[in-house]
Amino acid sequence: MEVESPNHQEKSRGWFKSLSEKLWSKMDDFVRRLIKLGKDDPKKIVHAIKVGLTITFVSIFYYFDPLFDGFGVSAMWAVLTVVVVFEYSVGATLGKGLNRMLATMVAGALGIGAHRIATLSGHTGEPILISVFNLIVAATVTFVRFLPKMKARYDYGLMMFILTFCLVSVSGYRDDEVIHMAIKRLTTVIIGSCASVIMCICIWPAWIGVDLHNQIATNLEKLGNFLEGYADEYFKVSVDDQDGRSKDKSFLEGYKSILTSKNSEETMANLARWEPRHGRFRYRHPWKQYLKVGTLARECAYKIEALHSYLRSEIQTPPEVRNRIVEPCTMISKESSKALKELATTIRKMTRSSIPDIHVANSKAAAENLKSILKSGLSKDVDLLLVVPAAATASLLLEIVTCTEKIAEAVHELESRARFKRAKPRVIPDHQDDSSHHQLDQQGITNGSHDHHDDYVITIDGNGYSSNQVVPASRNHV
Amino acid sequence: MEVESPNHQEKSRGWFKSLSEKLWSKMDDFVRRLIKLGKDDPKKIVHAIKVGLTITFVSIFYYFDPLFDGFGVSAMWAVLTVVVVFEYSVGATLGKGLNRMLATMVAGALGIGAHRIATLSGHTGEPILISVFNLIVAATVTFVRFLPKMKARYDYGLMMFILTFCLVSVSGYRDDEVIHMAIKRLTTVIIGSCASVIMCICIWPAWIGVDLHNQIATNLEKLGNFLEGYADEYFKVSVDDQDGRSKDKSFLEGYKSILTSKNSEETMANLARWEPRHGRFRYRHPWKQYLKVGTLARECAYKIEALHSYLRSEIQTPPEVRNRIVEPCTMISKESSKALKELATTIRKMTRSSIPDIHVANSKAAAENLKSILKSGLSKDVDLLLVVPAAATASLLLEIVTCTEKIAEAVHELESRARFKRAKPRVIPDHQDDSSHHQLDQQGITNGSHDHHDDYVITIDGNGYSSNQVVPASRNHV
Repeated sequence: MEVESPNHQEKSRGWFKSLSEKLWSKMDDFVRRLIKLGKDDPKKIVHAIKVGLTITFVSIFYYFDPLFDGFGVSAMWAVLTVVVVFEYSVGATLGKGLNRMLATMVAGALGIGAHRIATLSGHTGEPILISVFNLIVAATVTFVRFLPKMKARYDYGLMMFILTFCLVSVSGYRDDEVIHMAIKRLTTVIIGSCASVIMCICIWPAWIGVDLHNQIATNLEKLGNFLEGYADEYFKVSVDDQDGRSKDKSFLEGYKSILTSKNSEETMANLARWEPRHGRFRYRHPWKQYLKVGTLARECAYKIEALHSYLRSEIQTPPEVRNRIVEPCTMISKESSKALKELATTIRKMTRSSIPDIHVANSKAAAENLKSILKSGLSKDVDLLLVVPAAATASLLLEIVTCTEKIAEAVHELESRARFKRAKPRVIPDHQDDSSHHQLDQQGITNGSHDHHDDYVITIDGNGYSSNQVVPASRNHV
Repeated sequence: MEVESPNHQEKSRGWFKSLSEKLWSKMDDFVRRLIKLGKDDPKKIVHAIKVGLTITFVSIFYYFDPLFDGFGVSAMWAVLTVVVVFEYSVGATLGKGLNRMLATMVAGALGIGAHRIATLSGHTGEPILISVFNLIVAATVTFVRFLPKMKARYDYGLMMFILTFCLVSVSGYRDDEVIHMAIKRLTTVIIGSCASVIMCICIWPAWIGVDLHNQIATNLEKLGNFLEGYADEYFKVSVDDQDGRSKDKSFLEGYKSILTSKNSEETMANLARWEPRHGRFRYRHPWKQYLKVGTLARECAYKIEALHSYLRSEIQTPPEVRNRIVEPCTMISKESSKALKELATTIRKMTRSSIPDIHVANSKAAAENLKSILKSGLSKDVDLLLVVPAAATASLLLEIVTCTEKIAEAVHELESRARFKRAKPRVIPDHQDDSSHHQLDQQGITNGSHDHHDDYVITIDGNGYSSNQVVPASRNHV
């Protein structure tokens, strides 16, 4: 027994030690993650401080006697409103604030009405009638909340409507000054909402419209990044055989986030509609057009997902077959990449440009070239099974050309609907006789704002093409 | 002037008429949509009524004097809690309710502590110290809310934490009975939350776990539906040329919803974890495994998306080439379809089955057959451009076979982790000498629960295969 006792003690000590070590490592992990979050996005720290400051500011109503005398305990509603309404983005905060204020106002008025009607039926009938009103209003509005359109924009307002209606009508049973109470509630809700909105907009605001704008541009860039490196990757792996696999291939995975971005884009567009004019985003900015571009980008990402799977395909097409299509395939992927990246720059800088069109035209020409190569047959002696991945790749690249063209069209529609600026025109004397060339030069090649654009354009004559030949861009721009 | 006046009146009358007509049509549209919503899902109507009843029930605390005397105006918090906590699904309601109760308890206690410390610094120092506390707590917790893990499960609780902490600590300045207030708040919150949870669970509950379970099964069915009709569609369009386009093709579009289902599945899995044991769903049901199956289904849907695009391809492969691959392609798509549908049935009925494995084996055999046909070459005289879509289709079908196999594996893991029942064994005398065949028959072919399974299995000998030949399934099950 004497031996067991210290053993037991040791055991429990060990247990305690391992528990505390576990807790410690969990805490450590938690803090590390918080620090990483703060470093990655300092704006989130600022948001947290903004929320704290607003709550502190609003609670002053409670501390100062002259203010407190006006509101009484209702002053608490202002603090509550700030906690609930203050969101990270301006759109979400404004949306919630407006929803809450409007709902409180309408529901408060209706609640007073319901209370008045109920009092007519005497002290016993009043609670019964109010209960019936509450049941009907709560059930109806809860059901309306299921409508997708309502859910997207007014969900919070409808919830607040039920809340305020029940609050005001029920309170009336104990508190005869129902109108006074409803007004106090409305005032404090307005104070809380306005404090949140003002704080949210005035100090380093996070516009969700800007986030959506940038995300769409980033998505196009990610597609471009994949296509830029894809052809090299695909054709090199077969030629050099497993060589260079150690280098960074993250650009090949970037597009994956686009595959599932639909919901977040839709939420962002819904919230962005609440935001007032800011920066170069006007009132009634065409947010829906961003969703259109986003959808097309996603369709392109699906094709890229299929393309990506052939990178890891077990069946490897023999080099002699690949070598026949390497040129047009590389061309398509490079030119589509450039087109997508230029479109991303167009969106990011909000400046119209026709450089993307040039790259789209180039990629289309390369596609025609690829088709003609395929038409002439690749190599008749090779077994078709080995050709399948190459054929599928070629076919997908052809589809990506179509996709890129559609994206370009959608971005051009966005340009005109959002009234993007034109790049500064520069007069080129040589071309003054030809107005269409002239215009193209104004917007396109001479546009100084593009970074990624290599300054050569490929001419296409018939089926073949010669690279690195510098010609005026307008020749290819049909 | 006399002429203009009636004209003006008429104009304003016309304007008023058109406005009222517009309003009327909008209202009409709104009501129609509500009715459609109710018809499509009567459970939503029931939910709305449940919310109304719970609110009415909780407001009784306000009407009855003995109950009101205990809580006073705080009784209002119970109504408020019901409005905010009561969600459609049990998981969401329980999650919010538990979050709210726990947060109110912890934050209430901390708030009282903060108030006590603050009172030590005198009447002037108190508000300053409380403000500092509030600032620190609100900012820290708001920042913690950004952590993805916290956001997924405890977002509402963290918000309630800030709210209650501020409420209790600030109220302490005017109300000396802080402890009493905190307890009243906690009690009313508990009453509201419990009323919501009980009502939500007891009357026609909507388990989000069941929804996730069914959605995953439906997704597999949708993939199966596409593949079932795909081959007929693809090969018929070329042979009959545009014939039969008028018939219902909705099965070809069903898979599209899977492409973007990631977010909703993740949310559902997060909420399902809150739900207690119900029906055949135990405590610690492997919800994450559903997400795994869902992800694989999505990968398969990406391939199907690519496959779908070839249905509308401009380039049509000549019939003589198509005819060479029509058999194995049809076989792959039909057998994969059956496998996926059987997997869906397995999930839906929560009964283990090895029928899917048989179909997977069949589709793999067909894939080998397709490969050997491709190896022998399709038709050397045809231009390769026309072969590309067929080759790409074949290649995608080969990948779908791999995908289906992966899905089958994931579903089998789900079966064992969620402890699905085995189908009732039935002894077949002919096979009693071979235990592995015997077992297969027990689970597979003789399982009476499958509806979609045609009772023949295809034998594979070498590269070729003969269809419609009835053999014991176990022969193909490697």
